[in-house]
Amino acid sequence: MSHNSFGQLFRVTTWGESHGPAIGGVVDGCPPGLSLTEADIQPWLDRRRPGQSKFVTQRQEPDEVRILSGTFEGLTTGTPISLMIENKDQRSRDYGEIADSFRPGHADLAYHLKYGVRDYRGGGRSSARETAMRVAAGAVARKVLGAAVTIRGALVAMGGDPVDRAKWDWRAVEENDFFCPDREAAARWEERLLALRKAGSSVGAVVEVVAEGLPPGLGAPIYGKLDAEIAAAFMSINAVKGVEIGEGFAAAALTGEDNADEMRMAPDGTVDFLANHAGGILGGISTGQPVVARFAVKPTSSILVARRTVDRHGQDRDLITKGRHDPCVGIRAVPVGEAMMACVLADALLRHRAQVPDAPVSTRLPRN
Amino acid sequence: MSHNSFGQLFRVTTWGESHGPAIGGVVDGCPPGLSLTEADIQPWLDRRRPGQSKFVTQRQEPDEVRILSGTFEGLTTGTPISLMIENKDQRSRDYGEIADSFRPGHADLAYHLKYGVRDYRGGGRSSARETAMRVAAGAVARKVLGAAVTIRGALVAMGGDPVDRAKWDWRAVEENDFFCPDREAAARWEERLLALRKAGSSVGAVVEVVAEGLPPGLGAPIYGKLDAEIAAAFMSINAVKGVEIGEGFAAAALTGEDNADEMRMAPDGTVDFLANHAGGILGGISTGQPVVARFAVKPTSSILVARRTVDRHGQDRDLITKGRHDPCVGIRAVPVGEAMMACVLADALLRHRAQVPDAPVSTRLPRN
Amino acid sequence: MSHNSFGQLFRVTTWGESHGPAIGGVVDGCPPGLSLTEADIQPWLDRRRPGQSKFVTQRQEPDEVRILSGTFEGLTTGTPISLMIENKDQRSRDYGEIADSFRPGHADLAYHLKYGVRDYRGGGRSSARETAMRVAAGAVARKVLGAAVTIRGALVAMGGDPVDRAKWDWRAVEENDFFCPDREAAARWEERLLALRKAGSSVGAVVEVVAEGLPPGLGAPIYGKLDAEIAAAFMSINAVKGVEIGEGFAAAALTGEDNADEMRMAPDGTVDFLANHAGGILGGISTGQPVVARFAVKPTSSILVARRTVDRHGQDRDLITKGRHDPCVGIRAVPVGEAMMACVLADALLRHRAQVPDAPVSTRLPRN
Amino acid sequence: MSHNSFGQLFRVTTWGESHGPAIGGVVDGCPPGLSLTEADIQPWLDRRRPGQSKFVTQRQEPDEVRILSGTFEGLTTGTPISLMIENKDQRSRDYGEIADSFRPGHADLAYHLKYGVRDYRGGGRSSARETAMRVAAGAVARKVLGAAVTIRGALVAMGGDPVDRAKWDWRAVEENDFFCPDREAAARWEERLLALRKAGSSVGAVVEVVAEGLPPGLGAPIYGKLDAEIAAAFMSINAVKGVEIGEGFAAAALTGEDNADEMRMAPDGTVDFLANHAGGILGGISTGQPVVARFAVKPTSSILVARRTVDRHGQDRDLITKGRHDPCVGIRAVPVGEAMMACVLADALLRHRAQVPDAPVSTRLPRN
Repeated sequence: MSHNSFGQLFRVTTWGESHGPAIGGVVDGCPPGLSLTEADIQPWLDRRRPGQSKFVTQRQEPDEVRILSGTFEGLTTGTPISLMIENKDQRSRDYGEIADSFRPGHADLAYHLKYGVRDYRGGGRSSARETAMRVAAGAVARKVLGAAVTIRGALVAMGGDPVDRAKWDWRAVEENDFFCPDREAAARWEERLLALRKAGSSVGAVVEVVAEGLPPGLGAPIYGKLDAEIAAAFMSINAVKGVEIGEGFAAAALTGEDNADEMRMAPDGTVDFLANHAGGILGGISTGQPVVARFAVKPTSSILVARRTVDRHGQDRDLITKGRHDPCVGIRAVPVGEAMMACVLADALLRHRAQVPDAPVSTRLPRN
Repeated sequence: MSHNSFGQLFRVTTWGESHGPAIGGVVDGCPPGLSLTEADIQPWLDRRRPGQSKFVTQRQEPDEVRILSGTFEGLTTGTPISLMIENKDQRSRDYGEIADSFRPGHADLAYHLKYGVRDYRGGGRSSARETAMRVAAGAVARKVLGAAVTIRGALVAMGGDPVDRAKWDWRAVEENDFFCPDREAAARWEERLLALRKAGSSVGAVVEVVAEGLPPGLGAPIYGKLDAEIAAAFMSINAVKGVEIGEGFAAAALTGEDNADEMRMAPDGTVDFLANHAGGILGGISTGQPVVARFAVKPTSSILVARRTVDRHGQDRDLITKGRHDPCVGIRAVPVGEAMMACVLADALLRHRAQVPDAPVSTRLPRN
Repeated sequence: MSHNSFGQLFRVTTWGESHGPAIGGVVDGCPPGLSLTEADIQPWLDRRRPGQSKFVTQRQEPDEVRILSGTFEGLTTGTPISLMIENKDQRSRDYGEIADSFRPGHADLAYHLKYGVRDYRGGGRSSARETAMRVAAGAVARKVLGAAVTIRGALVAMGGDPVDRAKWDWRAVEENDFFCPDREAAARWEERLLALRKAGSSVGAVVEVVAEGLPPGLGAPIYGKLDAEIAAAFMSINAVKGVEIGEGFAAAALTGEDNADEMRMAPDGTVDFLANHAGGILGGISTGQPVVARFAVKPTSSILVARRTVDRHGQDRDLITKGRHDPCVGIRAVPVGEAMMACVLADALLRHRAQVPDAPVSTRLPRN
Repeated sequence: MSHNSFGQLFRVTTWGESHGPAIGGVVDGCPPGLSLTEADIQPWLDRRRPGQSKFVTQRQEPDEVRILSGTFEGLTTGTPISLMIENKDQRSRDYGEIADSFRPGHADLAYHLKYGVRDYRGGGRSSARETAMRVAAGAVARKVLGAAVTIRGALVAMGGDPVDRAKWDWRAVEENDFFCPDREAAARWEERLLALRKAGSSVGAVVEVVAEGLPPGLGAPIYGKLDAEIAAAFMSINAVKGVEIGEGFAAAALTGEDNADEMRMAPDGTVDFLANHAGGILGGISTGQPVVARFAVKPTSSILVARRTVDRHGQDRDLITKGRHDPCVGIRAVPVGEAMMACVLADALLRHRAQVPDAPVSTRLPRN
């Protein structure tokens, strides 16, 4: 039991503070013989990197990852893979004021009450900077899953303004600053976010992650359900306040006949689902349909608007949080959500094949 | 790593199938010296018990729990507590048809593809019957948390019809068949559910669980966050498709200044939060405010309306699921949600005191 | 983390006290599709059963195991297997005196100091009765390992009198009351144990367990080493004070050239080891040679000879432990040691195939 | 479940290969508020450091540890502590020959069969170099245990030549090159080891570790027994083939009346044990007596004497292992054994106080 680890067989442990010398992670349990170099990881980190547009924090971090162990001549060896990124652009002077005061909506007070000692610089351990290591681990997880599995994320709502699913285009996701699949929504969001940034405010968002090409059978009853593990993984991301699978909360308003995904046999002998309200998971186990999950990200709590708070000496204070913050932390949560999905699936895959090595890899039902 | 266990230090393992001879659970890690007999557990089981109103399954199970180990002369001994309930009213003949066919929206197909062998009678391991053991374990968890901690659940929406929070009355929850805190909503729901039952249909619901009287400091960064563990615990309950904490998905539509809970010092030297959008958790750690969480339950997939499906021989079938089912499985999920919250909190409490034995038990901030 | 569970993927949790209504265990993670009924487990329990000869405790327990979950129509389903044995011959009146006094060499004092409350009857949770569930779980583990793997144990020394390895005959193990592979030693031991029993004394012993037919590759660096897990498993058996692998402590007296097992290629292309000082494990990983491990069992501490001790009220006492005890608890530890070996190996097998699904199953080295 | 982690609440994960850029470790679960800087760790590393006498490997590694996270202004913060040591004196050209051939008695073949890919340079992950991180983690564990707990190790036999316990002097341990508590034995061993080194051979040894000042109650039945965890921890150290607690294997030759440690009340109201055959542990739980444990280290398998072996192409080979090796790897295992003991005890302490926060800290028995 480690509070800084996740996964069981594909197990990731992270360490590091926002303004310490470095952040890092250890990936244990990776199968041997997979090709892996820094070049496999860096592109995913670059997607999440701060300072790339005016809509994210202006901290300039190259986020160059080094592999310190676990590979030999470009192949994984089955031993733990140590990943490290040096922190370059710590500007700790920005944080003098929050050494004593607790930002409303932030982890400051909770850490203070729990631990007594805390590294307040840039949020210390509670900073979203930690998520860089999740993205790095996710790149390794994608190797474990193989090329047949695709995991993609998108921002599907910002500040209550959703995308139009009829206009969904995965290519658009890579074209705008918001990972937004709907070009028209992206244009609206840009305008709005500029205004919010100017006002020193921030806004929440919803992220959707879709995994395709999975075999059926991932996940296990009762407490190893795939959806339960996705829920924990997403909820562990900074600022996330809600998680849903498939139809999610909307399912609570449906009748049984509307919600249950009917089936017919496809000509190739596999099962053809006529809908995917379930989000690809039934009874905690993947069905072979795309796994679809969403999470809600609250607005950044570090804002330039003065808020009422208290300090460690029990005094009332009014606080403006300076520093370089994301006006919509949900944007950079997209690659993080993808990475967490990849890690959860890689772990589930290893566990599935441990217990059922000869399980079917498709939904084909033998006619006999 | 056990797929049928949850919790780390307060650890619960369950076993049993819907139509096997019994279901059971083992609670390991319980502190010694707590008073515990069957009489402490039975009332909670009675709340969840099937067959008590016309809005839940008509299976008649007395659900009498036996403690087989872990106590001596009415006190816990620190050794594992074995709990068992005999199954009495298995009516397996109801399930002949689903031996071969897969109910849409149910775990049948997923189990078949994963394991090859499955106990189809009453859903076997995937049956909601398993949740009786969660309720039993939750009763033990409440003992660990002590009398100062209150955990209460309620149904806050059925089929898209929410309660009016202005009319919330916890006493109402115990008075109607729906655990509904709004008497007017309960009246509406009764009418609606009678119609749905007559139509052989079913409907989804939303459950809210509130924990009060907690110390700050429960939960731990990064992957042991209290909200991540609540999310996993709730998502592991049968038919749950979404989980949210505090403001939840609504937070995604708010600005930073609206969402962050401001603070002032109270006259007694503790922190006075001016709102609770956070649901009592910041940075994954409890703040001392009430912990508020919700989950969405999909409509029961076993319905009397014919649905298109396939069978294990790869043939198209049209299926009507007979048997005795809950028209709104969300109702009986209320005590289950309370129990899962209790277990998660008991576990977090033990972990917190292991790492920080002298942590403060309130939000009092010393003036120095 | 459960103190009453062992194994990671093949995970066993046990519960129950010596004089409670029953003892039981839950085996989680067992692959589906294995044939398993009570008849597969009962013979192994019968080997360990008390009351079968004058050299073990005279408590009469039929030790009839029931499978309460996890199988369907004679096959495992991949869900948790619940096993239970009712206690029949509790004679709790024998234990009145030790309610207050702590038997020297026994767990009484340690439990009292740790937990405050303890079930003193028959040793409660610390009784060797718990090992019946290990044997039951071991029977399931043997199914996982398959018929090609053989696990056999023997008593190789009693009270300092070792067997003559030149006279080793596995058939003898099943013929005498000591699981002794050397018929002459068995005769000597019989005489000695009769005398000891008459004197109300007891004696220690050494057990050896040999596993043959294993693939190479089981176990993993660094902290999942196969020998480390065998060591923990054996040391968790009641009264065990030492564990060794292969040459064991004798290796500490050897030179490098004497200890290292040389190799040559066999005609069939596999590796031919010229010795097995390593006990089949190198670097924590099985090599395909027989795995050989031993453990030392201390003499039963419950004896009829008066010993000086103290009671819970801080008073000096002289204590004679009445009741029905094993004069050499090492004898019944033989099937327990076999079972623990089986469980450790089954777990290692599942973990190995999770990480390296296409690993070689023999030591064949391709000539290329 | 991580094969490269140990401990549950005080959890250590290590990474790194002998000839990679660095080795490292992450300590998770450390309580906050402990003073900790590199200066607290370095002295323990210096004791284990290679190249310090002619009796250990001549590799010159400064072994300078850096703390990369988890502390702030000299205090632990409760977040993961990342420790790293750069490798400086990798001389990989020494290892060309073993790229293809498997050293007898070494992990080479086992890694090859398990993983297919391996970093053969210096033994890669299987190198004793990894133990430096155990020593670093052990230094943190000592902080958790506090100054009242003393953990000391000594070499008690080399090549079958034991120390004379009547001549035991802890001060001698720090004076000679062998951590030998008997000055006369140290003199004999020096002579012998010089001869062995000249002959290109190696020899085994036995290490004893003693922990004093512990509270009673550490460890837990049944599978979390303190002795089981010590056994696993010691057996996970490179080249260890046997572990024993207290009387150990010698207990198997004793009678019950000789082995059980009698008790009397001491004048101060605590329990006075009249012997310590149990090694401070009964029923898996510490009694407050000194915990005494030993482990057997086999002779280094990398020797300059030619041995018969095979290569990866299935060819017979005769191999001499060049490079810089320890003629008695048992010597440097002494600080490693101490560190593992410290880690196991720190972990047990946290677990004990989680379950029983108000447990007694001495063996005092209230007279009532």
